[in-house]
Amino acid sequence: MLSTQSLLKNTIVRGIPTSGMTLSSLKLATNYSTISKAMVCEKHGKPKDVLRLKELTIPKIKDDEVLVKFLAAPINPSDINQIEGVYPIKPRFKKYGAVGGNEGVAEVVAAGNKVKNLTVGDWVIPDTKAFGTWQTFAASPENELQKISKNISKISASTISVNPPTAYRMLKDFVNLKKGDVIIQNGANSAVGQAVIQIAKAWGIKTINVVRDRPNFDELADQLHKLGATLVIKEEDLRANSTRELVKNLGSPVRLGLNCVGGKSANGITRLLGHNASLVTYGGMSKQPLTFGTGPFIFKNLKACGFWNSRWNKEASKKDKQYMFDDLCELIRGGYLAEPWHDETKWELSDDNKTLNRKFMKALSKAGASFGNKKQILTFE
Amino acid sequence: MLSTQSLLKNTIVRGIPTSGMTLSSLKLATNYSTISKAMVCEKHGKPKDVLRLKELTIPKIKDDEVLVKFLAAPINPSDINQIEGVYPIKPRFKKYGAVGGNEGVAEVVAAGNKVKNLTVGDWVIPDTKAFGTWQTFAASPENELQKISKNISKISASTISVNPPTAYRMLKDFVNLKKGDVIIQNGANSAVGQAVIQIAKAWGIKTINVVRDRPNFDELADQLHKLGATLVIKEEDLRANSTRELVKNLGSPVRLGLNCVGGKSANGITRLLGHNASLVTYGGMSKQPLTFGTGPFIFKNLKACGFWNSRWNKEASKKDKQYMFDDLCELIRGGYLAEPWHDETKWELSDDNKTLNRKFMKALSKAGASFGNKKQILTFE
Repeated sequence: MLSTQSLLKNTIVRGIPTSGMTLSSLKLATNYSTISKAMVCEKHGKPKDVLRLKELTIPKIKDDEVLVKFLAAPINPSDINQIEGVYPIKPRFKKYGAVGGNEGVAEVVAAGNKVKNLTVGDWVIPDTKAFGTWQTFAASPENELQKISKNISKISASTISVNPPTAYRMLKDFVNLKKGDVIIQNGANSAVGQAVIQIAKAWGIKTINVVRDRPNFDELADQLHKLGATLVIKEEDLRANSTRELVKNLGSPVRLGLNCVGGKSANGITRLLGHNASLVTYGGMSKQPLTFGTGPFIFKNLKACGFWNSRWNKEASKKDKQYMFDDLCELIRGGYLAEPWHDETKWELSDDNKTLNRKFMKALSKAGASFGNKKQILTFE
Repeated sequence: MLSTQSLLKNTIVRGIPTSGMTLSSLKLATNYSTISKAMVCEKHGKPKDVLRLKELTIPKIKDDEVLVKFLAAPINPSDINQIEGVYPIKPRFKKYGAVGGNEGVAEVVAAGNKVKNLTVGDWVIPDTKAFGTWQTFAASPENELQKISKNISKISASTISVNPPTAYRMLKDFVNLKKGDVIIQNGANSAVGQAVIQIAKAWGIKTINVVRDRPNFDELADQLHKLGATLVIKEEDLRANSTRELVKNLGSPVRLGLNCVGGKSANGITRLLGHNASLVTYGGMSKQPLTFGTGPFIFKNLKACGFWNSRWNKEASKKDKQYMFDDLCELIRGGYLAEPWHDETKWELSDDNKTLNRKFMKALSKAGASFGNKKQILTFE
């Protein structure tokens, strides 16, 4: 973990080298503008075509603002869709363009006089849409940030605001699950899928995990079992009688299905659901529509719903969010929720802009690869 | 309405002509067996092949039983599916076979000594599955019957236990509708559809009604408007921009969709739903599966559920049922809920068995016709 001192070494305040600053002298930072290096787009388009590295001048912060220094930020598929303009949330275009990235963790390095709930040294994650996290510094009103525990790794903290809450809320808000209950999910090797397996395991819930067949299926299944998966099956086995038997042997009807694939996969999952179960859809990776038989809906009393973390985040109270993040941090600290499988791209202050751009584009292209297992995470050194 | 006296005229108690009996002498009936003429099947199959008229001897009723004389009973599509064996509810096969029919109204003509809540003269509807209503008499424990108001027509009473409750519950249990809210339904000319239009109208809710195109579309639309429909549109207009405009002009987002068709129709309805709306499926007349885009589920927060009146009926308390039936009878008496469009088949006691069989088979064949507008109802004279 980085100390405030080591952070200071990397802080650039225009005209004043911060290296060697003391904590008290940090307050000075509020009086100066700051340069942020940011991945910016001026219009919608393929991210590799429209994004480029820019140096942005952040004016001195206002009384109700904090200045934050980013520690880590992932490149998520929804970030890409957002830049393409095909996502319901649009980038925040300003004069200089829009900074990409919605998720990440930052440290507060300066706070205005009227800031109440944050202090220098706090770790924060965005609590608003289209924050712009692919940059080294940002100024923000404090209410657009959510304080987060510092007792977790910066990789965990930078990826805590989208995937783990998606898993957490889907396991909590649709069916009142009890210990020993069974759920099923497809896309089980996704970052959400990994979080589902681990949170379910921590809560005593059994998981049936569906993944696409692949050359290293056994290896993947092994990894998922290590995370706590009860069963791991292939998409094409969803309809097999042997699968029905396996599911039956779990001893409880399947009460909840989580779907990020759609098409045949969602339909196959529906067939394994028990009476009064819910199917929650949070993605559509196959780009196929959801297709269900009418009978199971009527006679098994199924429900199909959507879940979108951005909506939850917008509608939930600060208190509910704090409760959830505390709970998630607790799970992380307790060793129940590991960092997602990831590749780290180190964004070093000593890198020149061309190098940073090249590093970013490489990570971006991996993040855009269909069905990639590994999350791409920028870490700012 | 039939008086007890006129009922007595038609009651056959083995060996004792009841014509001219007084009310007090009815108690005698409990001491004798009764002959019921019934449409019975001995196995699953096409109803026209497996059903035949039989004379069944009903033994003298037990202390906790009542003897009822049927007044009217419809032939519903689900009755047909049940005899075919393709419905989750199976006929009650006994030694002599199973009597068809699940819905109808009967009058209590005799009550055992321990019967508490019913008395001679009460009107009752079945409160259990597979009761067998295509018969002239039946003996039943009182808890398998639900008392119903006598201040409605026997056509209304005989069709009150499936379609109106389906409409009533779907309008009540999924979305908290307020005056001025808008709902959409397909199959709007079905018996449920007609009930939806009328109950919604009574509650101040606007309805968009989708029907298949047909030569007499204008006439049908006119009939639905007379029932209280706000808009009537054709299936093929579901996706038209002009429809979007019409719906917009209703002034409120569409909060609830009711689907008994499936396939493209259900999908088209989903596209017109507003944020946080629910789509309730209670039938699948097109035999096409439900197909939805993933996006609307996630980003519009849609819900898709099934509704099955038989389940509600099984799970609801006697009190909740009584409340609903009282409410429905009130709507009927107030002139808000008309008899469903129907053809009446008079089952006269003076008819010989061959005639009764012929009359029944004619009604059955009309009831089985795809997308028939008119409910087929047997009335026992």
